[in-house]
Amino acid sequence: MMSKPIIGFNDCTYEDSEIAVIGLPFDSTTSFRPGTRFASQAIRNEFFGLESYSPFLDADLEDANIHDLGDIELPFGQIDVALDMIEEAATNVLNDGKIPFSIGGEHLVSLPLIRAAHQKYEDLVVVHLDAHTDLREDYLGNPMSHATFLKHCHKFLGDGRIYQFGIRSGTKEEFDWAKEGHVTLQKFNLDGINDTFRSLKGKPVYVTVDLDVLDPSIFPGTGTPEAGGITYKEIEQLFVAMQEVDVVGADIVELSPHYDHTGVSTAVASKVLREMMLAILNKK
Amino acid sequence: MMSKPIIGFNDCTYEDSEIAVIGLPFDSTTSFRPGTRFASQAIRNEFFGLESYSPFLDADLEDANIHDLGDIELPFGQIDVALDMIEEAATNVLNDGKIPFSIGGEHLVSLPLIRAAHQKYEDLVVVHLDAHTDLREDYLGNPMSHATFLKHCHKFLGDGRIYQFGIRSGTKEEFDWAKEGHVTLQKFNLDGINDTFRSLKGKPVYVTVDLDVLDPSIFPGTGTPEAGGITYKEIEQLFVAMQEVDVVGADIVELSPHYDHTGVSTAVASKVLREMMLAILNKK
Amino acid sequence: MMSKPIIGFNDCTYEDSEIAVIGLPFDSTTSFRPGTRFASQAIRNEFFGLESYSPFLDADLEDANIHDLGDIELPFGQIDVALDMIEEAATNVLNDGKIPFSIGGEHLVSLPLIRAAHQKYEDLVVVHLDAHTDLREDYLGNPMSHATFLKHCHKFLGDGRIYQFGIRSGTKEEFDWAKEGHVTLQKFNLDGINDTFRSLKGKPVYVTVDLDVLDPSIFPGTGTPEAGGITYKEIEQLFVAMQEVDVVGADIVELSPHYDHTGVSTAVASKVLREMMLAILNKK
Amino acid sequence: MMSKPIIGFNDCTYEDSEIAVIGLPFDSTTSFRPGTRFASQAIRNEFFGLESYSPFLDADLEDANIHDLGDIELPFGQIDVALDMIEEAATNVLNDGKIPFSIGGEHLVSLPLIRAAHQKYEDLVVVHLDAHTDLREDYLGNPMSHATFLKHCHKFLGDGRIYQFGIRSGTKEEFDWAKEGHVTLQKFNLDGINDTFRSLKGKPVYVTVDLDVLDPSIFPGTGTPEAGGITYKEIEQLFVAMQEVDVVGADIVELSPHYDHTGVSTAVASKVLREMMLAILNKK
Amino acid sequence: MMSKPIIGFNDCTYEDSEIAVIGLPFDSTTSFRPGTRFASQAIRNEFFGLESYSPFLDADLEDANIHDLGDIELPFGQIDVALDMIEEAATNVLNDGKIPFSIGGEHLVSLPLIRAAHQKYEDLVVVHLDAHTDLREDYLGNPMSHATFLKHCHKFLGDGRIYQFGIRSGTKEEFDWAKEGHVTLQKFNLDGINDTFRSLKGKPVYVTVDLDVLDPSIFPGTGTPEAGGITYKEIEQLFVAMQEVDVVGADIVELSPHYDHTGVSTAVASKVLREMMLAILNKK
Amino acid sequence: MMSKPIIGFNDCTYEDSEIAVIGLPFDSTTSFRPGTRFASQAIRNEFFGLESYSPFLDADLEDANIHDLGDIELPFGQIDVALDMIEEAATNVLNDGKIPFSIGGEHLVSLPLIRAAHQKYEDLVVVHLDAHTDLREDYLGNPMSHATFLKHCHKFLGDGRIYQFGIRSGTKEEFDWAKEGHVTLQKFNLDGINDTFRSLKGKPVYVTVDLDVLDPSIFPGTGTPEAGGITYKEIEQLFVAMQEVDVVGADIVELSPHYDHTGVSTAVASKVLREMMLAILNKK
Repeated sequence: MMSKPIIGFNDCTYEDSEIAVIGLPFDSTTSFRPGTRFASQAIRNEFFGLESYSPFLDADLEDANIHDLGDIELPFGQIDVALDMIEEAATNVLNDGKIPFSIGGEHLVSLPLIRAAHQKYEDLVVVHLDAHTDLREDYLGNPMSHATFLKHCHKFLGDGRIYQFGIRSGTKEEFDWAKEGHVTLQKFNLDGINDTFRSLKGKPVYVTVDLDVLDPSIFPGTGTPEAGGITYKEIEQLFVAMQEVDVVGADIVELSPHYDHTGVSTAVASKVLREMMLAILNKK
Repeated sequence: MMSKPIIGFNDCTYEDSEIAVIGLPFDSTTSFRPGTRFASQAIRNEFFGLESYSPFLDADLEDANIHDLGDIELPFGQIDVALDMIEEAATNVLNDGKIPFSIGGEHLVSLPLIRAAHQKYEDLVVVHLDAHTDLREDYLGNPMSHATFLKHCHKFLGDGRIYQFGIRSGTKEEFDWAKEGHVTLQKFNLDGINDTFRSLKGKPVYVTVDLDVLDPSIFPGTGTPEAGGITYKEIEQLFVAMQEVDVVGADIVELSPHYDHTGVSTAVASKVLREMMLAILNKK
Repeated sequence: MMSKPIIGFNDCTYEDSEIAVIGLPFDSTTSFRPGTRFASQAIRNEFFGLESYSPFLDADLEDANIHDLGDIELPFGQIDVALDMIEEAATNVLNDGKIPFSIGGEHLVSLPLIRAAHQKYEDLVVVHLDAHTDLREDYLGNPMSHATFLKHCHKFLGDGRIYQFGIRSGTKEEFDWAKEGHVTLQKFNLDGINDTFRSLKGKPVYVTVDLDVLDPSIFPGTGTPEAGGITYKEIEQLFVAMQEVDVVGADIVELSPHYDHTGVSTAVASKVLREMMLAILNKK
Repeated sequence: MMSKPIIGFNDCTYEDSEIAVIGLPFDSTTSFRPGTRFASQAIRNEFFGLESYSPFLDADLEDANIHDLGDIELPFGQIDVALDMIEEAATNVLNDGKIPFSIGGEHLVSLPLIRAAHQKYEDLVVVHLDAHTDLREDYLGNPMSHATFLKHCHKFLGDGRIYQFGIRSGTKEEFDWAKEGHVTLQKFNLDGINDTFRSLKGKPVYVTVDLDVLDPSIFPGTGTPEAGGITYKEIEQLFVAMQEVDVVGADIVELSPHYDHTGVSTAVASKVLREMMLAILNKK
Repeated sequence: MMSKPIIGFNDCTYEDSEIAVIGLPFDSTTSFRPGTRFASQAIRNEFFGLESYSPFLDADLEDANIHDLGDIELPFGQIDVALDMIEEAATNVLNDGKIPFSIGGEHLVSLPLIRAAHQKYEDLVVVHLDAHTDLREDYLGNPMSHATFLKHCHKFLGDGRIYQFGIRSGTKEEFDWAKEGHVTLQKFNLDGINDTFRSLKGKPVYVTVDLDVLDPSIFPGTGTPEAGGITYKEIEQLFVAMQEVDVVGADIVELSPHYDHTGVSTAVASKVLREMMLAILNKK
Repeated sequence: MMSKPIIGFNDCTYEDSEIAVIGLPFDSTTSFRPGTRFASQAIRNEFFGLESYSPFLDADLEDANIHDLGDIELPFGQIDVALDMIEEAATNVLNDGKIPFSIGGEHLVSLPLIRAAHQKYEDLVVVHLDAHTDLREDYLGNPMSHATFLKHCHKFLGDGRIYQFGIRSGTKEEFDWAKEGHVTLQKFNLDGINDTFRSLKGKPVYVTVDLDVLDPSIFPGTGTPEAGGITYKEIEQLFVAMQEVDVVGADIVELSPHYDHTGVSTAVASKVLREMMLAILNKK
């Protein structure tokens, strides 16, 4: 009789779950418009009204073993402490043989998440959808930032392990560095994403989606909206492609609910989350 | 010298009118975000600033015989009474040899509207644009709901009389029931809508448009925005197709002005209304 | 480490609790701007950031035995069913020897809540803070409505059992009926509220607060804002006065979060809830 | 059965009316945030939900002979033409023996309204509630502006005919000019307003209320909100005082609905309008 | 160490600049929703967070000689004075051998800007992107209006000098007049824009972009949003095409920040401005 | 002819100034709703429309020697670096014999500002207006936070140097610690503020105003709105009292423009700033 806002449509326990959802209310290095700390709870509230069935994937969350761990309480203004807490939480989930699906927060949260996955899976590959390169050495004088997280990941992943899609903003230096072959960067759209995923068959893949890869027309509720993004129908290519590989971890980041006056961005984020979780569990 | 907010661009009387506009401020069964009760008045305010001429259809509302009957005052919390009042109003307009064009309100208002049309036109066909199937038996324990209205229509229309377009959300049961052939359901888009209308030439057609068939990027002002919808340029296919048949009644529903912070959704609804009315009167 | 949005600051079980909180997402008869169905969840989200200590009452929620039961899932468009479910939930809490504190929803939810309390406490007295009289026989043709709930309560409570404060809107008929002595009605403010509560010492008292008794300057997030209301500092008189009596049930209603663009109304509602709960448990 | 948005609660014709309401959608000289052109229609939409009875004045609009003439269609960017149209409309109403009650629009609309009243009533007195002095010679190089309208009125009214209340913003020159005795200016509040009105008994009085005299806490929906204003309970002094004199014309100006996100300002403006109309007709 | 909001990414002086930016806070003839007067300052605030590098054009504003002259202080309600001031400012910039890039304000500001350019370049050609024809003789009784500006330009430019793209709203008379060959009008999209620009090689071209040519899904923050517009990816054709010709002046108009609740429209306008400035300086 | 957004009404150079304004866009430790980083620029934009003359103080900013230094560019996520930069900027202004008036940003910015002032004035006294105690040892595990700044100040100021007003939220521990006599804490209002300032005559005083001391009805645009605050008319007591002493530094903090949908909070903050600057320069 009583309802509560969680992500999931059955009462799957942590023990029985394949995917464990972690909320990460963290936005301490956000440079423009902060507020992604409110995303995980907004998505939980939205999930209550979401349909469990996906006509696109012909799959249903009611059959999915998902457990929502809630939000980690992270300290504001102590970045190192927060990142360590995130890494520990992800490591625990991975060690329990489950797939951590995290909800940011700003994109810096993906650094400890990917590090945790890399510690378990040495040959980890990262697929990164984003409007922004996130490949800086430092940002506004700060080496540890949402705009630098992927450069940090590259340090332990090495060349050839990162595939970027939808990128349409960054410095000339970042694009030049990518062109040197350290990462594979597809500008503006998701062209080739299905081929990429097929080529990764058999490898452990981490998928990180900065929701601002979507065009601001459909996803205005984010800190740095960037025109020229992909439509929702284009991001459906990701859901198809993901079914090809072993996804060992995933996240969606950068929903900022207080800039989502109409609620559409939160609805979109929730639908992306549903489709990604179904795609992971629906592996061909 | 004095102006007032009505739908229409000349002073056509009810007697001289071909189309009679009815406002239906009703949203009592809305499950998620209510507020469609404010739609008809919002569209009237908007019409004052709308251009009467359509470059797309090369037709002008100044030449159209349209009379705005205003809003029906409906009781809140007494659904049966409200539905009866709506049916009576539509029946009166139909009996006067006019085409009722109604503005919801939630989608349940289409049930009495279609029933009234069916009582006059035994071989009535319904074309339904929507993001949602609306084919449930009951919804949250309630048999009479916006999510069930089309199933009720099917009961008196029978198989083969309902054509759905743009559908992208519902339960697995609803999609399965549709696949059994009771209705013709086109998922995700309007593909084939022109052929459908051509095949209906000579038959009385009722057109019901849940505006949430449009993508939330262009139509955020609705109760349950669902990503992956059609663009405005795609819905223009409907206006072309409608010119092929005898439209005997029509409605647009589910604009919720209080979620339309920018006013764009109301502007879109008004333009859809203009184009649909022009298409009806512009019959080839 | 993991947090979740509940009302309360310790992990008090239902068994150990003195107050049981019930969320009532119901607004089916709302005549103007619906949306109070979202209130209980909005307050839960807000509670996470609220200070547990009240400097005004010098009391702390960390020491309070409160258990949050969550929201009852109520059907939309089936008013009688919903009211019965509410009454049953309140009766259960009362029979377990606890105080139900409910969060509306529209004011009609107080009818089954007060009926349940009256069934346990025959000599029940109701204190009612509101901008509106809520004493109609019917409203827009509907006998069962937020605008009629108190007249229904009067039918089983009888004369002399209802004390109204802050009333500033209604029909002439309602004010005239009140003047006949059926209820005690204080217009515009809370003058005399402390004397009233003192005179009720020893009696079982139900306190129902329509938050629109507050001025729209401090509480805009409600369906029918009515200028000329009381300030927050004035409503603090209620918290002082409540400490004088045995409160056997209470509710706050009519927060409508989607009209609360700044979040201030939700913050105010949460603070009123904290102070009322502390006043109940702080009984002198 | 059909409803429409007008100001008034019965079907009083123009012929039978004592008060004729005129909407003036004009804001061409607004210097900061324009948008008052939308006020009259917003108030009409609001009136539909307003209670007709005033507990404060114990009077009811259902007994009031009020006719709503609608909005004058005014040209944008042609100030002189617009002002002439306004003056003509007011003159017609005055010549028909009725009281024009106008709804701005920016405050410049009061210049032709007061000029029309002065042409009929040579000994006209003006009572002016406002946050701003409006006594400049010119504003941003423009002699004809909302910030200069009262200086223009002074030119034909002369010394001793203007009483200002609530003023809290202006240039030092304006305040100094007022101190020279040309007008009577009460800073910050309405102190003495009842005495002023009593002293005007028998004289024809025009009352012009710039709604920004109210504090922005209760009236944020205006172009230049100015902190330190009066509360709604303070402006009730005006309604009491107005009953003492012959009001021959009145207006409320400067509601800007697009800055009124919560709808509270429109609700307040509508209530002020109701109380002022009742006070005029309720003359002792 | 200290930062300030300007358009530009280096400290280029006016003397060294190729492009001089002029802000034009003017919206006095706006008929529907005013507020474009706030656009230039909103874009300046946004520019601080914008990336200087364009991956689309592979060019960087850090290498661009741009000087921001600030806003001209224009009088409200004195249209002729304002237009003269604008023309004078543009003439000065042109006479100094620089390219004026202006930020409206409403579209009427383009009349004096184009007149100034025509006085220097007798064979001036105008490329005009807009949702609206802007070819009326007068609008709501006013000959000098945002809806008439291009008709005025035609008077001194003559036939064959105006190329319109993206037009989707206007009166039948305007479309008919265009069809007579006075101007070249491409309805609904930018098809052929590259060919047009190539055909203009060697001629002095003025580019005026009414940002409402963009679809309201990506650009809601404007006075008269019109569904069916172009996407951001479509407007990128303009940036490519502009590199073909000598642009001697340009403007973007009709951003209305107060209708841009999410900030997306301002971000889009800033990006369009960046790309247009880079395209001008990047001339092949 | 060209205007730009600065705080001040004449062209006073830094050299000639008595007050130097510093913008501090910093909110890295904000625990609830971030966004105060946008405050200084929002106030600058607002100042352009503000009247320079104060009728309340009968003083005019046109006669005031104020220079706006602009914003310091602070790194996000590097709190220690940011605090050092703030302290250095304030120290420079103090060493130049001027009064630094800073605009936050979150309240933690006051720590380096007060430290800088204390280094110059050993007997510095701090007057602190706030809704919150800000006296914690640590907050959410973080010792350096907006909620702890005043405890840090106490460490170098010592007992008896801090006067708090308007406090209405905090932990029991904070209130108990204050009661031990370390600071003088006036709960809920500004009672006694004039006496306090008189008793400080001759001493160097730093005034720090957390604008959330104002009631959320008049100041909703802040991160943690707390009901029960003071009105604007009450804070005018501060402006009177400040004229009694030597103010050697001041700040206003915690305006969060993105929660200020109506613009009222920004207008209030700007007016408070004007009055405080005039009060400082108007010393009796």
